[in-house]
Amino acid sequence: MTIESTTPPVDPVDRWAGKQTAPLSRRALLRGTGILAGSVGAGALLAACAQAGVTSWTFPVASATNPDAAAVPSDPTMSMAPAAGASPSAMAGMATSPAPVGGARDPSPADFASPPRYHPASSTPIAFDLTSNDGPGETILISASPATAYRSMNFGRQVPAPTLRITEGETVHFTLTNQGQMPHSIDFHAAQTAWSTNYQEIAPGGSFSFAWTANYPGVFMYHCGAAPVLMHMADGMYGAIIVDPKVARPAAREYLLVQSEFYGSGGEYAKMLNNPPDFVVFNGQANRYKATPLIATAGELVRIYLVNAGPNSSSAFHVIGALFSHVEADGNPANRTGMRQTIDIPPGDGAMVELTFAEPGTYPFVTHRFCDASKGALGMFKVS
Amino acid sequence: MTIESTTPPVDPVDRWAGKQTAPLSRRALLRGTGILAGSVGAGALLAACAQAGVTSWTFPVASATNPDAAAVPSDPTMSMAPAAGASPSAMAGMATSPAPVGGARDPSPADFASPPRYHPASSTPIAFDLTSNDGPGETILISASPATAYRSMNFGRQVPAPTLRITEGETVHFTLTNQGQMPHSIDFHAAQTAWSTNYQEIAPGGSFSFAWTANYPGVFMYHCGAAPVLMHMADGMYGAIIVDPKVARPAAREYLLVQSEFYGSGGEYAKMLNNPPDFVVFNGQANRYKATPLIATAGELVRIYLVNAGPNSSSAFHVIGALFSHVEADGNPANRTGMRQTIDIPPGDGAMVELTFAEPGTYPFVTHRFCDASKGALGMFKVS
Amino acid sequence: MTIESTTPPVDPVDRWAGKQTAPLSRRALLRGTGILAGSVGAGALLAACAQAGVTSWTFPVASATNPDAAAVPSDPTMSMAPAAGASPSAMAGMATSPAPVGGARDPSPADFASPPRYHPASSTPIAFDLTSNDGPGETILISASPATAYRSMNFGRQVPAPTLRITEGETVHFTLTNQGQMPHSIDFHAAQTAWSTNYQEIAPGGSFSFAWTANYPGVFMYHCGAAPVLMHMADGMYGAIIVDPKVARPAAREYLLVQSEFYGSGGEYAKMLNNPPDFVVFNGQANRYKATPLIATAGELVRIYLVNAGPNSSSAFHVIGALFSHVEADGNPANRTGMRQTIDIPPGDGAMVELTFAEPGTYPFVTHRFCDASKGALGMFKVS
Repeated sequence: MTIESTTPPVDPVDRWAGKQTAPLSRRALLRGTGILAGSVGAGALLAACAQAGVTSWTFPVASATNPDAAAVPSDPTMSMAPAAGASPSAMAGMATSPAPVGGARDPSPADFASPPRYHPASSTPIAFDLTSNDGPGETILISASPATAYRSMNFGRQVPAPTLRITEGETVHFTLTNQGQMPHSIDFHAAQTAWSTNYQEIAPGGSFSFAWTANYPGVFMYHCGAAPVLMHMADGMYGAIIVDPKVARPAAREYLLVQSEFYGSGGEYAKMLNNPPDFVVFNGQANRYKATPLIATAGELVRIYLVNAGPNSSSAFHVIGALFSHVEADGNPANRTGMRQTIDIPPGDGAMVELTFAEPGTYPFVTHRFCDASKGALGMFKVS
Repeated sequence: MTIESTTPPVDPVDRWAGKQTAPLSRRALLRGTGILAGSVGAGALLAACAQAGVTSWTFPVASATNPDAAAVPSDPTMSMAPAAGASPSAMAGMATSPAPVGGARDPSPADFASPPRYHPASSTPIAFDLTSNDGPGETILISASPATAYRSMNFGRQVPAPTLRITEGETVHFTLTNQGQMPHSIDFHAAQTAWSTNYQEIAPGGSFSFAWTANYPGVFMYHCGAAPVLMHMADGMYGAIIVDPKVARPAAREYLLVQSEFYGSGGEYAKMLNNPPDFVVFNGQANRYKATPLIATAGELVRIYLVNAGPNSSSAFHVIGALFSHVEADGNPANRTGMRQTIDIPPGDGAMVELTFAEPGTYPFVTHRFCDASKGALGMFKVS
Repeated sequence: MTIESTTPPVDPVDRWAGKQTAPLSRRALLRGTGILAGSVGAGALLAACAQAGVTSWTFPVASATNPDAAAVPSDPTMSMAPAAGASPSAMAGMATSPAPVGGARDPSPADFASPPRYHPASSTPIAFDLTSNDGPGETILISASPATAYRSMNFGRQVPAPTLRITEGETVHFTLTNQGQMPHSIDFHAAQTAWSTNYQEIAPGGSFSFAWTANYPGVFMYHCGAAPVLMHMADGMYGAIIVDPKVARPAAREYLLVQSEFYGSGGEYAKMLNNPPDFVVFNGQANRYKATPLIATAGELVRIYLVNAGPNSSSAFHVIGALFSHVEADGNPANRTGMRQTIDIPPGDGAMVELTFAEPGTYPFVTHRFCDASKGALGMFKVS
């Protein structure tokens, strides 16, 4: 295990003191930017972003770009298949245009539709590099209607963060570069490594590298663990890790859905602690897949990787009009159940579900904790 | 699959917009009826109901009637046993008197004690017909003490709705007739069918029919999915489907318990979204089985079919003084665990548990999420 | 089964009426003691305790004592091993000094680090004796920083209550002696016995005995079930039962963690019903194991027995930097899953998890429902 750090290690206990100095200084940073309102009209939102110095920032995404270009294979037809069962049509949405400079933007559909592997060939070491970001330029759109801005903290300038997809047994060479104004850190749920060593806080401007091996298959959360952890997570610092089993799964059309909650307009720690969320979303935006549904074909096997980033609410994942023929708790093939209607995924957990749509048509997916579905945790499958 | 509709299909996306036009118009309907108070004395409640035009409305039910007469077999001694292990004593409560006209009333005990199959003989097609209802005449009693009225929306003029019990592989010929003042729809968790085709909203006065096959055994929720779904569910539009496996389960005394929450006095969408419930109940009424316990015999096998209709709170189902010897997630025999103390059932999910009482006496059952048990999700088994 | 009671049986239905007479009279008892504030400085806290007549009351515990001396074997080197895989170092913390007289105090570390069996030899009947207590002398420290007092109800003058550890098939001879000012009762989730017979309320000054057999292995909650149950549980009347399987588990370093919530400063029923908790803790005190971590060695098998006493919030148990190699729902070997990141434990339930730390360092454990972790449900493993 290689460890190269440019910042001194942080005391492992004090990090969890839950002091709110970080959010306060962050709020101070945002003073005068004009983007403190949680819900604004689209025009005001764009104006506010221009004021905040965002140079390239549009949503909803028409032609999405993957902002973490270094971690994306340049050739989508890479010799080692991006996923055992990735269908070509699902891969078509993957864009490879270079990332714009500065400011958060919508994640790439390629992160969620048949997420690609993060190495083009098995002989190449897997490099997974992330930036951590915060501040007024990191405002994201968490709801298109009503248009609602949120001042995020993030990895790779997107919420959810870039997906890491690897195979059981592979080693990841990871580097976190903190481009933000406050300390950040990493926590990979798929890794088995000391928090005090590798999940330490990195000061603004610093970077930290270590290697870890994914010893077990599964669908895992990763997130920032800098204090206060609740806020760094609620503000957007989370992503998914898919560790494919060595014995490849059957071919399937694949999707990734990351459920999470938003409270207020960013950094509102008291709301995160004690209030219900204002929005609950899949893949970063309320009702993201309502107007632009995920696609599938009747009769084909569909596989959904699920991560509930929370931070607080359990997901009762359900697809209307379908049953889950195969379910794996934490995405491990050993933990299987079948013919399920609804899957409980607590915050900080993951799962894998498979289903087959019986006939063409539209099928919504929700968390059946319906107060949360009503706040945006709802999408559509369009089945031909 | 046959589809006969008398109403035009509804746009599948706009249905989920969450507009509150429906509840508002419903509130308007109720203006001046005098039944807007959430908790009233029994006398005021009966007066209010008379004012609202309820012609036959009493509770608690002394001699219950099944309000969905068309769907109930006329002969409780039907040649094909109503359930593999239905005990005659449990069946005794099933009434077959005709339903009164107009207004919601208490569901029949027969819906919950050894729920009967919905077809008298295997050669007869299974017809499951439901009405959807809303408006001032649909007030139900959600708590006897303190006497508390709730202006329900419902199926079959009862909350929970009539139970559909069939066997794996059977086909159900379903018709929904909307007798309410606003659109309603159906969503069978046991079915595999397109939401955009068969779960469409039916306009007031319309009806819609389709057939579906229960391909897998289980304990499933069904509910209205008209917008806003959260409100149609919270207002009472849910019921249970029991799909028996082809290989009959061992003989047992059987019960069905549907857990659900009530917020305010009906139609209060904001409370449903963000507030804790006022009542949490089994089978539609707080503490329903406290004064009139469910019965069992020491040493016999007892089987409970569980549905958590939510809409928001997970059930932590527990029987005080007993362990669940056999548990099936979603009621599927393949998903078994054993010797459990408490079962987590997220909203929109179901389960089957079996237990044997060790000795005569009284055994309460609760959700061990005790704020909810304290609001009425508590009943009793009286074991002889 | 022997039953000896010095108090008349209580009506099994009225007990659940949820009347708040008990908390009111309890509040009355506390009037003028000066300990009604929920969060006070350490000096004021100690002064308040002295005022309340606490003769021996310090925290955090430097040299802990087990307050339920009668139930603890006097010889920690008892011939029958205290646990199949108890490591000597984990046992070292077990103290056997006599309990001080009067007033609640911090539980013994021995209740949580490799909990000892409650009988020194297999030929000796297992006696498990508890006192129930309430009133101004039962104030406990639920948070060290900020120092926060809570007027508990408790068993054995500690929160959580003493742990009962036995082996599948053994019979427990139990006696509850009510030393409090209000009725209390017992409810063992591991027992199969009539609530109306053995879980009856015991009047102040009374006692009640019965015997029960632990027929199944598992990790179970026990608690007071006197009305209102929600309050007796939330105020601190809960503990853990570990029933080891007859076929001993592999040797491991063992810990017990009991998660629970605190609302206000004691007896605040309305907050328990409808508000989020103020503190969520493991083993009775917020962040108990942050400054004084649990210890382990890299590469050894670590086993954690988990009980979620609630009363309201599900636990999403997670250890940062580790995976659970083996998980048993309700602690029953038949209910196994593996390689899990996060385990959902509803209130009133238990589980067993095993893990192995990959390398020396510090590893936090939390509920990944992070609003609860942020309120104190966080601790540390220090791995050498």
